[in-house]
Amino acid sequence: MPLVSHIKIKKRMSVSSLAEQMEAVKVLGPGRFGKAARILGDMFRDKNCTKFVSLAGPLIPGGLRSVITDLVDGKYINGVVTTGANVTHDMLEALGHKHIVGTEAADDTRLRQQGLSRIYDLYVAQKSIEDLEKSTYRMLGRIPEPKRRDIGSYELLREFGKQLQDSTSLLHTAQVRGATIFCPGIFDSMLGLHLWTYSRLHALIVNPLKDFSRLVDMTYERKRVGVIILGGGMPKHQVLIANTYRGGVDAAIQITLDRADGGGFSGAPLEEAISWGKVKTPRNLVTVVGDATVLFPILAVAALQQLRN
Amino acid sequence: MPLVSHIKIKKRMSVSSLAEQMEAVKVLGPGRFGKAARILGDMFRDKNCTKFVSLAGPLIPGGLRSVITDLVDGKYINGVVTTGANVTHDMLEALGHKHIVGTEAADDTRLRQQGLSRIYDLYVAQKSIEDLEKSTYRMLGRIPEPKRRDIGSYELLREFGKQLQDSTSLLHTAQVRGATIFCPGIFDSMLGLHLWTYSRLHALIVNPLKDFSRLVDMTYERKRVGVIILGGGMPKHQVLIANTYRGGVDAAIQITLDRADGGGFSGAPLEEAISWGKVKTPRNLVTVVGDATVLFPILAVAALQQLRN
Amino acid sequence: MPLVSHIKIKKRMSVSSLAEQMEAVKVLGPGRFGKAARILGDMFRDKNCTKFVSLAGPLIPGGLRSVITDLVDGKYINGVVTTGANVTHDMLEALGHKHIVGTEAADDTRLRQQGLSRIYDLYVAQKSIEDLEKSTYRMLGRIPEPKRRDIGSYELLREFGKQLQDSTSLLHTAQVRGATIFCPGIFDSMLGLHLWTYSRLHALIVNPLKDFSRLVDMTYERKRVGVIILGGGMPKHQVLIANTYRGGVDAAIQITLDRADGGGFSGAPLEEAISWGKVKTPRNLVTVVGDATVLFPILAVAALQQLRN
Amino acid sequence: MPLVSHIKIKKRMSVSSLAEQMEAVKVLGPGRFGKAARILGDMFRDKNCTKFVSLAGPLIPGGLRSVITDLVDGKYINGVVTTGANVTHDMLEALGHKHIVGTEAADDTRLRQQGLSRIYDLYVAQKSIEDLEKSTYRMLGRIPEPKRRDIGSYELLREFGKQLQDSTSLLHTAQVRGATIFCPGIFDSMLGLHLWTYSRLHALIVNPLKDFSRLVDMTYERKRVGVIILGGGMPKHQVLIANTYRGGVDAAIQITLDRADGGGFSGAPLEEAISWGKVKTPRNLVTVVGDATVLFPILAVAALQQLRN
Repeated sequence: MPLVSHIKIKKRMSVSSLAEQMEAVKVLGPGRFGKAARILGDMFRDKNCTKFVSLAGPLIPGGLRSVITDLVDGKYINGVVTTGANVTHDMLEALGHKHIVGTEAADDTRLRQQGLSRIYDLYVAQKSIEDLEKSTYRMLGRIPEPKRRDIGSYELLREFGKQLQDSTSLLHTAQVRGATIFCPGIFDSMLGLHLWTYSRLHALIVNPLKDFSRLVDMTYERKRVGVIILGGGMPKHQVLIANTYRGGVDAAIQITLDRADGGGFSGAPLEEAISWGKVKTPRNLVTVVGDATVLFPILAVAALQQLRN
Repeated sequence: MPLVSHIKIKKRMSVSSLAEQMEAVKVLGPGRFGKAARILGDMFRDKNCTKFVSLAGPLIPGGLRSVITDLVDGKYINGVVTTGANVTHDMLEALGHKHIVGTEAADDTRLRQQGLSRIYDLYVAQKSIEDLEKSTYRMLGRIPEPKRRDIGSYELLREFGKQLQDSTSLLHTAQVRGATIFCPGIFDSMLGLHLWTYSRLHALIVNPLKDFSRLVDMTYERKRVGVIILGGGMPKHQVLIANTYRGGVDAAIQITLDRADGGGFSGAPLEEAISWGKVKTPRNLVTVVGDATVLFPILAVAALQQLRN
Repeated sequence: MPLVSHIKIKKRMSVSSLAEQMEAVKVLGPGRFGKAARILGDMFRDKNCTKFVSLAGPLIPGGLRSVITDLVDGKYINGVVTTGANVTHDMLEALGHKHIVGTEAADDTRLRQQGLSRIYDLYVAQKSIEDLEKSTYRMLGRIPEPKRRDIGSYELLREFGKQLQDSTSLLHTAQVRGATIFCPGIFDSMLGLHLWTYSRLHALIVNPLKDFSRLVDMTYERKRVGVIILGGGMPKHQVLIANTYRGGVDAAIQITLDRADGGGFSGAPLEEAISWGKVKTPRNLVTVVGDATVLFPILAVAALQQLRN
Repeated sequence: MPLVSHIKIKKRMSVSSLAEQMEAVKVLGPGRFGKAARILGDMFRDKNCTKFVSLAGPLIPGGLRSVITDLVDGKYINGVVTTGANVTHDMLEALGHKHIVGTEAADDTRLRQQGLSRIYDLYVAQKSIEDLEKSTYRMLGRIPEPKRRDIGSYELLREFGKQLQDSTSLLHTAQVRGATIFCPGIFDSMLGLHLWTYSRLHALIVNPLKDFSRLVDMTYERKRVGVIILGGGMPKHQVLIANTYRGGVDAAIQITLDRADGGGFSGAPLEEAISWGKVKTPRNLVTVVGDATVLFPILAVAALQQLRN
């Protein structure tokens, strides 16, 4: 029977050598974290693998906008499946708005009066969201009407990415680098409200079936598919279910604070997805228990450092 | 300063009198649970209040199908916003399939070979899901093609509810009793896969904008809006964001195991939603920490028992 | 293969019939809750079973003081293993002090200045804790010095229970009804600080080995042992490890929000304890995921109502 | 109002520069993690600060034995307050036994028959624990009987540390380097069972009051006190409450998966401890949500790397 190792830390160790030490533990949190770093490194190295990331939770407003964007820029990620909120917050920053450091102990009624909306301990100005409306309308107006009558979210976001001239923007960078951004629940967001009000005056049908067709097509483009799941929700489910046609994904890591025993999909272990045909084998699968906004940047650096070797 | 009371339990006490004892504690879990029972009772009693429930997590397959259906049947709930999975599982049972008692320690590769798919410790036969395809196609075929070319999920589910002849079905009961079921991410489910394959051969565009328009309209139908949030995800967000136009919901209870400090919307306290204009005031709001599949049936009985008085 | 049932709720149903409906679900949260109610009812009914409850977390200050006390009074519980905090708060109330309704969003620096100490959203006056010192000293002074030189916590708390004339007190009621209260970490509490300062001036050695001897003896007194675990920590571990000599407990329920995958003992499933000889078989074991301050009062009522039949 | 920054990751970045990037985010998980790294670095650098670490959960068996030991060896930690389990597992390894890589999906009844005991996904042989008895008896026999009649756990563990000739052992290293190890609940562990059986035949009273006196004394030895809280339980509480006499600790970081809203002390934010006088000010306090076995090694490396500058 294999034995548990102990992590040796050193002043001069790199992130990747620390992750290797953790993988050698083989059990509990360190074993899971180390395995995730190794799977992620393998994914990044694999040219025959289409890499998806799913984003749920406040990743873009919460400090990971450049992490995701830079990985897209480096072609380490080919497809992004995201909540509407993360798209909204990327666009807000692309339009020059900022996220504000706040506190979770705020008086929300007063914040509302001050024109601030809260995500745990960060704020966004309502005025920014109003400004987003004008910009969204203007960008929509530049899309030919026939296209607008039956458009997938991935096509819409590519159009927005083209029009947003901000090299730090996920939408813009994805458009430039040929990565595809899917937002299957795009209407369920502040951006979505603007799309909805636009649609009441102008032609606009965002067709989720077009998204799903494109997503399924992408799963066939290369020999392997790897998935990085940050948070749960519809983005996690969408990216996994689209892979059932090809017999499941080849590798996946998931970082989440959601727990399995409630039975919800967000907290479900990746092994469960094997029984649904969404994942191929129990090899190259790992769930890291924790906050993706903390752990993913560390794992990403560990994976990139593996590439140097 | 008000003081903490202690719960007195008695052999012959009703669920509602136990909940009242808990409300009197005023702090911690009992205070939150008791307050939720009171808010729910007030909602059920209020004829001038449109009541929504949002469903995320395995509520329908996990034993709460009749709880939700009976509340719809009793007109205690007017609108349901749900994940596609809960719709899928309601339809499976309406078509005569059953959910199977399993174990969370299963070998998922073997389950896959046996044709069983797993949700924590319950199984569903893949054959049931294949059968669902035929039935779905047949039901879609009976919807006039022009209607199918631009249909909201709520309209589609009303058609399905009409065709499913099962009085224990949520879809059927909602259709009979005039309640509306929204499934904004309907494609992100096993039912959704069948809709997608159908759409590749036949006319079908499910338009989320139609759903949102209907949902917003419903928030204006009566003087007040009350929301019961079971689990998080898109159903929670959708039902709250649709209420921003009317200035926010008047009352809401939420039951979830998700935590706030990750910053994700699923675990966010309802107070945070005030700063977004999704909720009106901090009165009549409460988050109960726990498993909705355990706590909601108890809260529902407590609320119904209040009505007798 | 057994099938999942659905809960039927009715206006006039008792807590125990609701729990029976939940047990019939057999899976997920309802299955676990229903099973816990049944195991608890079986324990309460069983005259040949020594019943222990372990208390960690703010059960006594948080509204469950009478629930625990009344079960001890009814001889449904024979042994209590608790944190020092729960003993401290029972004594505070027995001495006429009260717990105050507060808020979790308090400014703790200001609370400190106001002489209030906080447990989530409840407060206790520092003055109450200072008063406890005098009373503790007085009660210790009445214990003969030779006894004080080598005393178990269970003996000390029996002395306190005798001297505290309050029929709502857990310590007092336990002493009257012959139940035994163990507090293996008694020094790790506000009461413990008073014991420590006393010990610097007067003879006092509280010997944890005496506690453990008595606890092990109690596990042999009747044919069976049943354990109710509310929260985790040392109380959970102590009550289980004391049962290893007799081959493990016969039945146990545990209610906790702690999760298993961190590897800590507090969140560990009861099945794991079988491998340590702390539990006999996987029958009659269940972990209910949730807040014990919410779920235990409900389970206790359900169990008591079963006894009527 | 300060603005949220975004983390920039680079291939060649050190752990500490990644942590600095995270601190600059200022909100959510990255802000908390980065702040923890900075506070830890400040603690390590501060010669006028007595540094304590509290250990609860499977840190020693789960791969962090060398991390803790090496920090003690480097004099970055002066006091350790731990559960009995972590002491037990350190001694097992010092005596040549190993921890085995297992699986959390094990059949515990079969493991019991195979002589293996489980901690989530790692096993320990029952035979190792039996061997520990002999060694413990032998080591106790070498302690003069008068000393054994009234000994603190810290003195007992110093004796054990002296006798265990293993430079990778926490107990041994602490003894060599003059760090003090406290185990206030030492009887509540497998080692504790051996102490208890020994005490039935030989003189042995382990007096928790002696521990507490020593712990309080240590809080006065230098100008400042810093605390690193890994997991919760009695170790967390003990180290904080001992600091009330000096007006509270000056700096503290806590890493835990326990949540605050249950009201239990393990998940309580450090700010709450201000209202109890256990912590001085809200500056230099942070709770990192996550698994300490994953996050602490990373934070420790980040802190050590700050020292180079």
